[in-house]
Amino acid sequence: MITSPRNPHIQSLRALARRKDRTEQGRAVVTGVRLVDAVLRYGAGVEEVLALADPGPGRAVVEEAHRRGIPVRWVSGRVLESLADVKTPQPVAAVVVLPPVVPLETVGWQRLVVADGLQDPRNVGALVRTAHAAGFDALAVLPNTADPFHPAAVRASAGSCFALRIASARPQDVLARGRVWLADPSGEVDYREADYRPPVALVFGSEAAGARHVWPGARTVRIPVAGAESLNVNAAAAVLCYEARRAWTP
Amino acid sequence: MITSPRNPHIQSLRALARRKDRTEQGRAVVTGVRLVDAVLRYGAGVEEVLALADPGPGRAVVEEAHRRGIPVRWVSGRVLESLADVKTPQPVAAVVVLPPVVPLETVGWQRLVVADGLQDPRNVGALVRTAHAAGFDALAVLPNTADPFHPAAVRASAGSCFALRIASARPQDVLARGRVWLADPSGEVDYREADYRPPVALVFGSEAAGARHVWPGARTVRIPVAGAESLNVNAAAAVLCYEARRAWTP
Repeated sequence: MITSPRNPHIQSLRALARRKDRTEQGRAVVTGVRLVDAVLRYGAGVEEVLALADPGPGRAVVEEAHRRGIPVRWVSGRVLESLADVKTPQPVAAVVVLPPVVPLETVGWQRLVVADGLQDPRNVGALVRTAHAAGFDALAVLPNTADPFHPAAVRASAGSCFALRIASARPQDVLARGRVWLADPSGEVDYREADYRPPVALVFGSEAAGARHVWPGARTVRIPVAGAESLNVNAAAAVLCYEARRAWTP
Repeated sequence: MITSPRNPHIQSLRALARRKDRTEQGRAVVTGVRLVDAVLRYGAGVEEVLALADPGPGRAVVEEAHRRGIPVRWVSGRVLESLADVKTPQPVAAVVVLPPVVPLETVGWQRLVVADGLQDPRNVGALVRTAHAAGFDALAVLPNTADPFHPAAVRASAGSCFALRIASARPQDVLARGRVWLADPSGEVDYREADYRPPVALVFGSEAAGARHVWPGARTVRIPVAGAESLNVNAAAAVLCYEARRAWTP
């Protein structure tokens, strides 16, 4: 039983809140029953589970960890609190091996979502979840985009970042393979009239600044709005990804 | 020029961070160029604008306030910081009259979005923005739902809470007037096959718990997912609201 947040092992796990340490160590901490349950179900590599001696609603995931032969370490509430990215007390956590972020050229994608310059990790995480739900193959992350394995991104993805393929890319890698649509509130084509036949990529930039990179030859797609000026990026991505899904699965 | 956050007027404005004070006083503070710009464009009642002597990117909204005869009070960065709900420095703020939240029976709605038990004000705000963008008439808020005028909700709505009609309601008020669809990951009808002819209401509950109230006779609608278990409520609302919009504006 580890009771102190100053325990060296716990301190080394806390360092994973930093992107540099996550990348170097190739692992991250996820906290909360729902996320630990998701990483187990999605088959992510779990090195260990940390749990309260009485994990309450976390009992089922602790049992699942036992079944899979994953070491379970008993820790205090203070330890879990020190590892969590949210204030709500969490009865369990897991140390998860990060899937490799491979170059996009090595991914034979047909249906791709691209994050180009999203600064808020919650938006990146929500995009991962939506792309995964809508049946895309992969999410490509361009430079100047928040880390999809940032704790807030992992939480917003509800664990989908451990299930959907995540790749790194430059615009030319995407353009070389398929048709590319940039989401843009004043885009040239109504989203109901765009051609989503694979291979197809949907690119989402930040709400304020749009796509960060230059996308020569790509076309822009708009979602008409009645009242408000625009949708937030999470809402726009859901509408576009599901419109594409409609074209694939009539 | 007010330089101290302890100035009594500033203290009274800071009290508006609490729901009780907002309701009693019927006003709220919004901060940031984008939100102040939105409340001015949406024609909300603005009592005063607070601005840095050199508001930088906020210059245009200060000029607009002058044009409309709205008093502009010069304040220090520390004062604006003490009023803001975010850490990013904001060069302007506005004191806005809250639109009345009327009982739904008095609203002749045809297209309604209902928030039933959403606890996170950011989700309520995002729902307001999506409903407004998709051309709904009003948003009804049921008991046990976060305040749509909470600072985080106002920000997530991008000011749409001052443009879209907001009403209070009980389930029976909604059911009495039109067809009602409850968003539900395991709903009975595929969202592409639901009947959205007005008067129609779409009900969104919390992600974890679903709709909070009982909705006798209402039907449930689902958005199929390929990979992830479900969409977040913001994404689900965008897909459903835009599917309804498609039925209205072919």
